[in-house]
Amino acid sequence: MMSKTKEKRIVVIGGGTGTFVVLSGLKKYPVKLSAIVSMSDSGGSNRVLRDEFGLLPTSDIRQCLVALAANNNGAETLLRKLFTYRFCRGKGIKGMTFGNLFMAALSDILKSQEKAILQTQNILKIKGEILPVTLSDSQLVAVYENGLKVIGEHHIDEPKHDSKLKIKKAFLKPLARAYLPAVKAIERADLVVIGPGDLYTSLISNLLVRGIPEAIRRSKAKKVFIMNLMTRSGQTYGFSAKDHIEVLKKHLGRNVLDFILVNSASVPLAIARKYQAEKACPVVDNLGNTVKPKVIRKDFLSNKITLKMAGDNLWRSLIRHDSVKLAKAIFNLL
Amino acid sequence: MMSKTKEKRIVVIGGGTGTFVVLSGLKKYPVKLSAIVSMSDSGGSNRVLRDEFGLLPTSDIRQCLVALAANNNGAETLLRKLFTYRFCRGKGIKGMTFGNLFMAALSDILKSQEKAILQTQNILKIKGEILPVTLSDSQLVAVYENGLKVIGEHHIDEPKHDSKLKIKKAFLKPLARAYLPAVKAIERADLVVIGPGDLYTSLISNLLVRGIPEAIRRSKAKKVFIMNLMTRSGQTYGFSAKDHIEVLKKHLGRNVLDFILVNSASVPLAIARKYQAEKACPVVDNLGNTVKPKVIRKDFLSNKITLKMAGDNLWRSLIRHDSVKLAKAIFNLL
Repeated sequence: MMSKTKEKRIVVIGGGTGTFVVLSGLKKYPVKLSAIVSMSDSGGSNRVLRDEFGLLPTSDIRQCLVALAANNNGAETLLRKLFTYRFCRGKGIKGMTFGNLFMAALSDILKSQEKAILQTQNILKIKGEILPVTLSDSQLVAVYENGLKVIGEHHIDEPKHDSKLKIKKAFLKPLARAYLPAVKAIERADLVVIGPGDLYTSLISNLLVRGIPEAIRRSKAKKVFIMNLMTRSGQTYGFSAKDHIEVLKKHLGRNVLDFILVNSASVPLAIARKYQAEKACPVVDNLGNTVKPKVIRKDFLSNKITLKMAGDNLWRSLIRHDSVKLAKAIFNLL
Repeated sequence: MMSKTKEKRIVVIGGGTGTFVVLSGLKKYPVKLSAIVSMSDSGGSNRVLRDEFGLLPTSDIRQCLVALAANNNGAETLLRKLFTYRFCRGKGIKGMTFGNLFMAALSDILKSQEKAILQTQNILKIKGEILPVTLSDSQLVAVYENGLKVIGEHHIDEPKHDSKLKIKKAFLKPLARAYLPAVKAIERADLVVIGPGDLYTSLISNLLVRGIPEAIRRSKAKKVFIMNLMTRSGQTYGFSAKDHIEVLKKHLGRNVLDFILVNSASVPLAIARKYQAEKACPVVDNLGNTVKPKVIRKDFLSNKITLKMAGDNLWRSLIRHDSVKLAKAIFNLL
C-alpha cells in the first residue's frame, strides 16, 4: 500500500451497498475517511424504527459501520458480525437487524440518537467517521412523469406502480437541513466520492438536503462520481450513463464533477438475465470523452456474486463493484 | 484493598439479584471469580428465548455479566449499560432485554449458545468467568404440600395458586446434567458462596442439577451460605432462617456448610410494610450458635432502595444486601 506524507481527506456520499463497497476498499488506505449517509430510508427494519421507536432510520449508517469497523481483534470482529445480523426468529423481532436495535437501545440510554450514532462508532472502533446527512425526520417524495406522487423511499425502491415510469421531480418532506459536521467534512475534503448507489434513494436523497449541494459546490475537493453498473426499475429504468449524469447535475446545481469512474468489464450473461426479470440492465456508456468531467474506464467489476441474506425480505442486487479496484482508482486521483 | 500473594478462587452459586450483589462486591477484590448460574428461568424475556428462539434462558447470565463487566473505559461502560437495558418501545420487542437479544444473535452467528455465552464474556471483558450450571433444557417443577404440581420457574416465582403453600418436593424435568466447567470450578475452589437468592428458583434450581451437590460435597472449599433478608410467598412463606437451612441441607445431601452470614440490621418499617402486601416478611434468625456451620451476624443491609426498572413487567424486591459489606465478610473467610 502506498503512503503519503499527510493523510488526505476523502468524503464518500451515499448510503447503500455501493457506499459499503467504496468504504471497505478505502479503509485500507492511509486516508481520513468521512461517510455521509442518507437518512430517508423507510422500509423493513427502518419502518419499525420510525413508527414504533420514533427514531431516524439507521440501516444505511449500520452498513457503513460494518464497512469501517475494526476487525483485527476477536471481540471487535464479533461485534462487526453482530451488526450485519438480521434476526430470523422471534415473533416480533424477525427481520430486525441487530445493529439497528443496538443503536435504538443506545439512543434511549443516551437520550439522543446523535450521541448514540457517535458512541457506536467508538464501540466498534471504526476507521474514520460516519455522519448522517441530516437529523431531520423527512420522507423522500417522488413525482413521476404521469403525475403520480409516491411518498417514502421504500415505495420508490420497491414500486407497486408501473416501474418503467420516470421520476420528474424528487424532494424531501418536510425540508431537511444538513447536519453541520457533514457540511464541514465536505468543505475540508480533498476528494468527494458520490455513489455508486440507487440514484434517487441513495444519492439524490443526500443532495436534496439543504446545505449539501451548496457545500459540494463550495468545496475545493476533486469531485468523483462512480457510475452505477445496472439500471433499476422504479428509479432509472432504461437510463444511460448520460441520463444519470443529467439527473446528478440538476441536483448538484451545475457541472461540478471532475471525474466519472465507469466500469468497462461486461456483466456475465447469466447474471444479466436475472436482472432482466427485475426490468434492470447494464448501464450503457454513452459518455464519450470530455475534459470535465474526465471519464475513467476500467474493469471495476467484482468476481464475487452476492446473494440474498438470511432473514432479509428485501431484494438485494447480485452484482457489485470491486472494492479493491475502486479504492485503488480513487486513491490515484488524490 | 488487601492483597494476597496468590489469588484464591471463589465460586458463587445462584443467579438472581442476590448473586449480582455478591459479584459486584467481590469484583473489586484480588480473587479468581466463577459465577455458576441457574438456567431454568422461564418468565418474561426468557419465555421468548425458550419458545421462539429455541434457546436456553440467559437472564441470570446477563445479570452476572453486568456485575462483572469492565467499566473503566467508555466503550465498555456503554456496553455494560446496554446489557441492563430493557426495550420499552417496539411492538414485538417491548420487554425484551438487550443482553438476551445480544446473546441470541451471537448464538445464531456462532451456531452454539455455549460459545455465545463465552464470547460475550470476552466482549464485555468481564472479571472472572460465568458458567451456566447446565446446558440441559429443563423446567423447574414444584410439588406443594397439598399435591399441587407447578411446572416452570416463572409460575413458582409469580404464583397464581395459594402462595402460602409450602413446597414439598422440587425437581428438574427432564433431568439436567452439570456443565463440566462448573463442576471443575467447584472442585478447585477455595470458597463456595451460595445465595442470597430465591430459595427454590435461584438456589435449589442449581442444586437439583446432577453433579452439582456431589461436587460441592467433594470440594475442599469453605462453604458459605448467605441468608436471605426476606421470605417470599410461593417459595418460603413464613420460613425462619432454620427452615432455609433445612431445605438447603436436604438438597446438598448433608451438613456441608461452614459459615452462614446473617444480616443483623433491622429492615426499615416502611419497607417491611411494602413487603407485607406481597405476604413477605424479614427472615427470623432462630439459628442460635453452632460450631458448624458458624453463624456470622453483621449489618449486611444496603442503604439504597431499588425500584422497579423501566419496561420491566416483573416485580423486583426493594431491599438488598450491601455488596461492599458482603464482599468484605466473604473475603475475610478465605
